[in-house]
Amino acid sequence: MNQRGILIVVSGFSGSGKGTLMKELLKRYEQTYALSISATTRNPREGEADGREYFFKSKEEFEKMIAKEELIEYAKYVENYYGTPREYVEQQLEAGKDVILEIEIQGALKVKERFPDTLLLFVTPPTVEELHSRLVGRGTETPEVIASRMARAAEEAEGMDRYDYLIVNDNLDTCVRIMHEIIQGEHRRSSRNEEFIQNMKEALKRNVKGDE
Amino acid sequence: MNQRGILIVVSGFSGSGKGTLMKELLKRYEQTYALSISATTRNPREGEADGREYFFKSKEEFEKMIAKEELIEYAKYVENYYGTPREYVEQQLEAGKDVILEIEIQGALKVKERFPDTLLLFVTPPTVEELHSRLVGRGTETPEVIASRMARAAEEAEGMDRYDYLIVNDNLDTCVRIMHEIIQGEHRRSSRNEEFIQNMKEALKRNVKGDE
Repeated sequence: MNQRGILIVVSGFSGSGKGTLMKELLKRYEQTYALSISATTRNPREGEADGREYFFKSKEEFEKMIAKEELIEYAKYVENYYGTPREYVEQQLEAGKDVILEIEIQGALKVKERFPDTLLLFVTPPTVEELHSRLVGRGTETPEVIASRMARAAEEAEGMDRYDYLIVNDNLDTCVRIMHEIIQGEHRRSSRNEEFIQNMKEALKRNVKGDE
Repeated sequence: MNQRGILIVVSGFSGSGKGTLMKELLKRYEQTYALSISATTRNPREGEADGREYFFKSKEEFEKMIAKEELIEYAKYVENYYGTPREYVEQQLEAGKDVILEIEIQGALKVKERFPDTLLLFVTPPTVEELHSRLVGRGTETPEVIASRMARAAEEAEGMDRYDYLIVNDNLDTCVRIMHEIIQGEHRRSSRNEEFIQNMKEALKRNVKGDE
């Protein structure tokens, strides 16, 4: 069966619990998944290490990577670039790891366009009320920030149907398991096993000929 | 999430172990799945009960069902009709059961055409050698029958890529679990959850409006 890893993009509302979900998935199945590490031109924060949280690049280095098409996708927020270096992703896929990119919808759709085999997963709480109460529950955000997060969620929701699967995050433990099952199930898609099918067809033809 | 059942067609080579696999799946998850019961005009064999193994029909009754479009698909083998009554399938789907049809590729493709949401699963042994040795291993078939089964498999293999997923049957226990996971994962497809997405979009819009 399909041995090469699958490229997976995970997006989701702020407050969907996506971060915790990813951390748990990677911890529980560390042999199966690799998290893509982004490149950025922003300065490292305290405790961040180059090649662990991010690949830290100068503006010149980053623009050189863009020019040489070394990034799967990139975007500029305010003053800084963020992007996904292709090399690391390719290496992990070749090694049979399923590689997870945590990016937002614009980037997700760009990746899918360039690599149609990409699996798009969207993490959502079961209801809007739940989303709202999780944002409030953090206790760290002002009402203005919460309102702006909710407005952003409304925008993001417009793209939900462009994703392959919805991951409804109501219970962390169940959700991690289901997400893992969905990804592993995808490895069995016929479209991801053309070589297996081809070999099967040819071996069966040879067998029939041998019998004649 | 998606509450309605999924219509599933399972096909596979003779000797793929499909029969045992289905029996085990239905036993292990009897609340989740329902096996579609075919209608046929052939005579009941000893031990077969109407409405259990088959719905036994006269030729006239069967042709009336065809005329009234009460069959999802049907075919004629030698002298007898075999078909899938729509009513039972619809009832089970409505009740939230995933309904399994065990039919061959011609019927499978007809069902998919009429009901594009149908999930097509193809059961295959891991290798052609394994397929051959399972047919030999039964010890009940003449070399001619085995050769004709293998020739039939070569024909059937031509349609393998029309199926959504391959179920490689190397170990019964693992295979039953994987098949179950694939089907349950399918319930999370965005395309099967349009209502959930629509509700989410509308609730988020209302929330933003309420804030203004």
